[in-house]
Amino acid sequence: MFAPSFPDETENGNEERQGPHRMSRGGSTMAERQDRPPSSIGQRKVSRRGLLGTAAGLSAGALLASCSVFQRKEETPKLGASADEIIKARQLTPEDVTAALMTYVPSGKYDEYLMFSSTGHGGQVLVHGLPSMRLLKVIAVFTPEPWQGYGYGGYTNEVLEGGYFHGKPILWGDTHHPALSETNGEYDGEFLFINDKANGRVAVIDLRDFETKQIVKNPLLVNEHGGCFVTPNTEYVLEADQYSVPLGGVYAPITEYKEKYRGVLTFWKFDRQKGRIVPEQSFAIETPPYWHDLADAGKGPSHGWAFWNSINTELAIPGIAEGRPALEIATTQRDMDYLHVVNWKKAEEVIAAGKYEEINGFKVIRMDVAAKEGVLFLIPEPKSPHGVDVTPGGDYIVVAGKLDPHVTVYSFAKIQQAIQAGQWDTDEYGIPVLPFEQCVEAQVELGLGPLHTQFDDQGYAYTSLFLDSAVAKWALGKPYRDDGWKLVEKLPVQYNIGHLAAVEGDTTKPAGRFLVVHNKWSVDRYASLGPLLPQNAQLVSIAPNQPMRVLYDCPIGIGEPHYAQIIKRERIKSWEIYPEVGWNPHTQSTDPNAVLKVGEERIERRGKTVEIWGVLLRSQIRPDLIEVEQGDEVIWHLTNIERAKDATHGFALGGYNINLSLEPGETQTIRFKADIPGTFPFYCTEFCSALHLEMMGYFLVKPT
Amino acid sequence: MFAPSFPDETENGNEERQGPHRMSRGGSTMAERQDRPPSSIGQRKVSRRGLLGTAAGLSAGALLASCSVFQRKEETPKLGASADEIIKARQLTPEDVTAALMTYVPSGKYDEYLMFSSTGHGGQVLVHGLPSMRLLKVIAVFTPEPWQGYGYGGYTNEVLEGGYFHGKPILWGDTHHPALSETNGEYDGEFLFINDKANGRVAVIDLRDFETKQIVKNPLLVNEHGGCFVTPNTEYVLEADQYSVPLGGVYAPITEYKEKYRGVLTFWKFDRQKGRIVPEQSFAIETPPYWHDLADAGKGPSHGWAFWNSINTELAIPGIAEGRPALEIATTQRDMDYLHVVNWKKAEEVIAAGKYEEINGFKVIRMDVAAKEGVLFLIPEPKSPHGVDVTPGGDYIVVAGKLDPHVTVYSFAKIQQAIQAGQWDTDEYGIPVLPFEQCVEAQVELGLGPLHTQFDDQGYAYTSLFLDSAVAKWALGKPYRDDGWKLVEKLPVQYNIGHLAAVEGDTTKPAGRFLVVHNKWSVDRYASLGPLLPQNAQLVSIAPNQPMRVLYDCPIGIGEPHYAQIIKRERIKSWEIYPEVGWNPHTQSTDPNAVLKVGEERIERRGKTVEIWGVLLRSQIRPDLIEVEQGDEVIWHLTNIERAKDATHGFALGGYNINLSLEPGETQTIRFKADIPGTFPFYCTEFCSALHLEMMGYFLVKPT
Repeated sequence: MFAPSFPDETENGNEERQGPHRMSRGGSTMAERQDRPPSSIGQRKVSRRGLLGTAAGLSAGALLASCSVFQRKEETPKLGASADEIIKARQLTPEDVTAALMTYVPSGKYDEYLMFSSTGHGGQVLVHGLPSMRLLKVIAVFTPEPWQGYGYGGYTNEVLEGGYFHGKPILWGDTHHPALSETNGEYDGEFLFINDKANGRVAVIDLRDFETKQIVKNPLLVNEHGGCFVTPNTEYVLEADQYSVPLGGVYAPITEYKEKYRGVLTFWKFDRQKGRIVPEQSFAIETPPYWHDLADAGKGPSHGWAFWNSINTELAIPGIAEGRPALEIATTQRDMDYLHVVNWKKAEEVIAAGKYEEINGFKVIRMDVAAKEGVLFLIPEPKSPHGVDVTPGGDYIVVAGKLDPHVTVYSFAKIQQAIQAGQWDTDEYGIPVLPFEQCVEAQVELGLGPLHTQFDDQGYAYTSLFLDSAVAKWALGKPYRDDGWKLVEKLPVQYNIGHLAAVEGDTTKPAGRFLVVHNKWSVDRYASLGPLLPQNAQLVSIAPNQPMRVLYDCPIGIGEPHYAQIIKRERIKSWEIYPEVGWNPHTQSTDPNAVLKVGEERIERRGKTVEIWGVLLRSQIRPDLIEVEQGDEVIWHLTNIERAKDATHGFALGGYNINLSLEPGETQTIRFKADIPGTFPFYCTEFCSALHLEMMGYFLVKPT
Repeated sequence: MFAPSFPDETENGNEERQGPHRMSRGGSTMAERQDRPPSSIGQRKVSRRGLLGTAAGLSAGALLASCSVFQRKEETPKLGASADEIIKARQLTPEDVTAALMTYVPSGKYDEYLMFSSTGHGGQVLVHGLPSMRLLKVIAVFTPEPWQGYGYGGYTNEVLEGGYFHGKPILWGDTHHPALSETNGEYDGEFLFINDKANGRVAVIDLRDFETKQIVKNPLLVNEHGGCFVTPNTEYVLEADQYSVPLGGVYAPITEYKEKYRGVLTFWKFDRQKGRIVPEQSFAIETPPYWHDLADAGKGPSHGWAFWNSINTELAIPGIAEGRPALEIATTQRDMDYLHVVNWKKAEEVIAAGKYEEINGFKVIRMDVAAKEGVLFLIPEPKSPHGVDVTPGGDYIVVAGKLDPHVTVYSFAKIQQAIQAGQWDTDEYGIPVLPFEQCVEAQVELGLGPLHTQFDDQGYAYTSLFLDSAVAKWALGKPYRDDGWKLVEKLPVQYNIGHLAAVEGDTTKPAGRFLVVHNKWSVDRYASLGPLLPQNAQLVSIAPNQPMRVLYDCPIGIGEPHYAQIIKRERIKSWEIYPEVGWNPHTQSTDPNAVLKVGEERIERRGKTVEIWGVLLRSQIRPDLIEVEQGDEVIWHLTNIERAKDATHGFALGGYNINLSLEPGETQTIRFKADIPGTFPFYCTEFCSALHLEMMGYFLVKPT
């Protein structure tokens, strides 16, 4: 169960020897070359061994003598501090001690899994390591972030412009559901997709360099929620509206809600070669103005199908001042809402047959056509559902109705039979409504406020219970288990759990072991840091044949994760440096304006345009002196010619809102008008060498 | 040494019982009120005790039997998993085991210390907990951040506008040196100051709500580095230029560097009552165009004085293309640069006597006056210095020259004697240069690339060695220790260490125990996440009578910390909710436009202006329906009337780049022109209750 999947000591030792060696490769400074002692690498190795023998602690010896691993290694345990002294002084319980040992990752060893989570209205993506729960990286997506040079000059400005709304900057997002690209229903570690609930957008992140490459605005809706979810080979990225608006987001009086407001189920076509979503090859399906919530794609037997649930099938509209009930009441009147069942393979045929309309340049299958062609079906689902999750085998669809104590399990086979049988009523918009009883396999009572469900490798499902502040572990039925459709155990969590994620829990082959629960409230879990509290992510052990256990509390003080996916570390094969000097990360190819060698930097003046081809290396930015006239248009190409891993240079131009992060080999271009006269230092913002502070130049703007 | 300073079990137990109770106070939804089982709180308590008794692990029993704490408690240790099985499977060394036990913080217990660090070109401040090294919160400062609603409508837009440059938005910063406010030379936990190197700005953060309240642009310089550092009672916040420019940042040819470019030492006056910097009561001292680096304020005997070091006393200028040597070479020719010694009490008298000029509305003491009046002295310092740090007693000034293997220790008493003696030469600008030999107490050889120095409670100093990638521990001389001015030990760290911070290490009473080293390169420490690597912060034990040890590697994947300060948790007395309903965090007082009760929300139309007074509570935003005409000016007041801790509501208006975070009691106002026609849902962005998704409304903009 705890088989270590870390790089073993040898590999690690090698990496450590490589480390400083790599660091001295490439353009290291005169100072470094002269001053680094030849012995320093050796020193580091010796002293690390040295670290294993320090002042003694007798009872610690006793403590660890009981650990056969040390006896076998015939080590005399010598600890920096006595372990039981620490346990006593810090009042650690036996549970605390094993949790500490299960989650601690020593220096230089790697976490086994990577968790990608959204940050909600932070607009970004977080990458945590498991089991340590350390935040390894923040990926800027919808919100500008200058450490990555994201949105402060360079190509990333164009990426953000892709998500503008009617030409107006939208410089934040409400990220909800990250989706890793899949091949045959397994994570392939190549791309990550994430949605923006607030503004109806989807972003594409390339996991070779962990940078956002594309933001697309959905031209049919303003606000969404039911994304991102991918089909088993990433043919499509799914996205649906949350709060209905007239198609295209145009104005219509709220009193015409029923007639003019509509739902939208979107299938974004993804081109893996280009690494881009292709709007021209994408399509959407019009639905009644039900509010769509979460979704999942079919797999295995249900490949070719997709599932969305919905709330507000009451078609309630706001207007407290006008005498209408509050939405929280008006939208929760019916005991049943509708699971939307979509045959997207059929939808492709309908599109191919030209049975669509173009709205804002986007292909839309109208709902009457969707109903007639067998593209869209509804099934009743209890009550105000939130999560819909397809089992690993693709045979069942699990729906959690947040105002119903059960999860409802639909059988895909039974749904197909009901469709074949052709006995159905329709809703008031003429969409087929399949009989609930004919489609349901089981209902399992779990507790209060069930939201989302994940799966492990033992045939168990895990459902978050918001109102209980608990995780329910329950057994799936055949073919997963013989003791199926039963609640097994409940684990209290702190507090108000929303989403939860299991290791590779959305794939055809979940890996089990760990679950991360994303609690919406932390209340008393952390020291007081003002009225805005962090969310509380908790690492939970779901090891086989053991009770679930909370192992670690991880504060999220930088956003509100709504969902996460957890992938085995080794599936991610990212670049350590860019493939060639002069690499443009936007085109993922070499840049014609790259300067490849020191001495080839230059400045050209053409009328009111000044074009600069510059290079960065430890510890110079060349050219280091640029004078322009006020009002000149400046085009500035910058190439980091380093080839050493981690030899990133920043480029900041004070007073002009410009900062780039140029990783080894990277080329970027900034364009701006030199409209403020004065004396502006530019400099490297990444501490890159002993003479980093001297890595600067002056940009002079002569007043006209 | 490990005396636990956590809230004890009782206190913690209470908090836990309070937790859910608090949560159900205030406007909890009908659904919550109806659906939360009365037993759920009990459940949580029971089940937490339940967590302490789960499946057995025999040899773990043996392992923990050796820990007297469990024997005394007469517990039969029953662990979720066998501890030595874990140790074996995860290949943990004895050192790893104790490090895990020293750093793990169990669920619901609190970290002992809080570390405030900069994020470099990320523009923000991070708050980590020690010893767990968990990131507890990101405080938005110079860069907009929507999770906190910072810069997306509301009062925070005005805070950011305070830092605009010639009226142009500057929406990022290069934060370097956080400074906690001090009373009698100790951290008082009230305010935090942080500088922006890229654009010459300083920000004020109020630690009652952990929000940035003020950004001031230094009107004399473009770029800075030597800030923020505070005087012992926070009379002033120190800031100095890095790269010299003509005063006010105006244009002058680089060839007139010597005559027209200047340095600036700034003393920002802080008003603790207002919680604001007061530019009108602040002043600056003109210096020769040396590049100023780090600074520190005197304390105790040296109270009333301040110290800055400098580089490029060669007065080198860029121009590789013009045949000049690269700056990294030209700026490192001299063996000595200049420590700047400033008598700021004297400077106050000079200002009071009117012997200053106003430049861009800011009081400036010209350098000839500063020299004549005894405000400014120079002392030679070796070579290309970086850090200058005053010892806890205020009696010594420690300078680290990054191209010199020593730290140089100046005696404040000797400096005073040298000034009294009056025997000095001047630099070419007429500034007194005190004789090196007369001012130096000691030089201690430490190794290659010394940068910064911190202090503990045992009379030891800790200096970062960038080129050695090591920390040097050395003994201070009398009155601190009898075995003084000696290197004691060196600890290798991974890799290229920059700043380091000890617990309360900048105060008159350092607390020892832990040191955090901020390494610039992580190279092989973490799983590959693309070419941009996280920085590596390492927690180091500096426990008395033990060798230093790296306990924990903490990746910083959201910026580059340049400096940090570590404070005892209990010194921070922040608000858990805002003091009253209708609180305006900008004025830190109640807001006249707050709506205090449900039902008092309203909409007023005056010509082309629509003013809305709204309230938020679980799960409603009232009013929930607003219709305006295209082109209307909208003024929208929003009050979160919740009084439950953690009951934050977000407010997002899709398509209009608006998102607020409204903590319990908070009132904010947004103003915008409704220039895009259409149908725009607005909603709560913080998952606040079971019916959070139903907490929305429609904002309709009718086309004209």
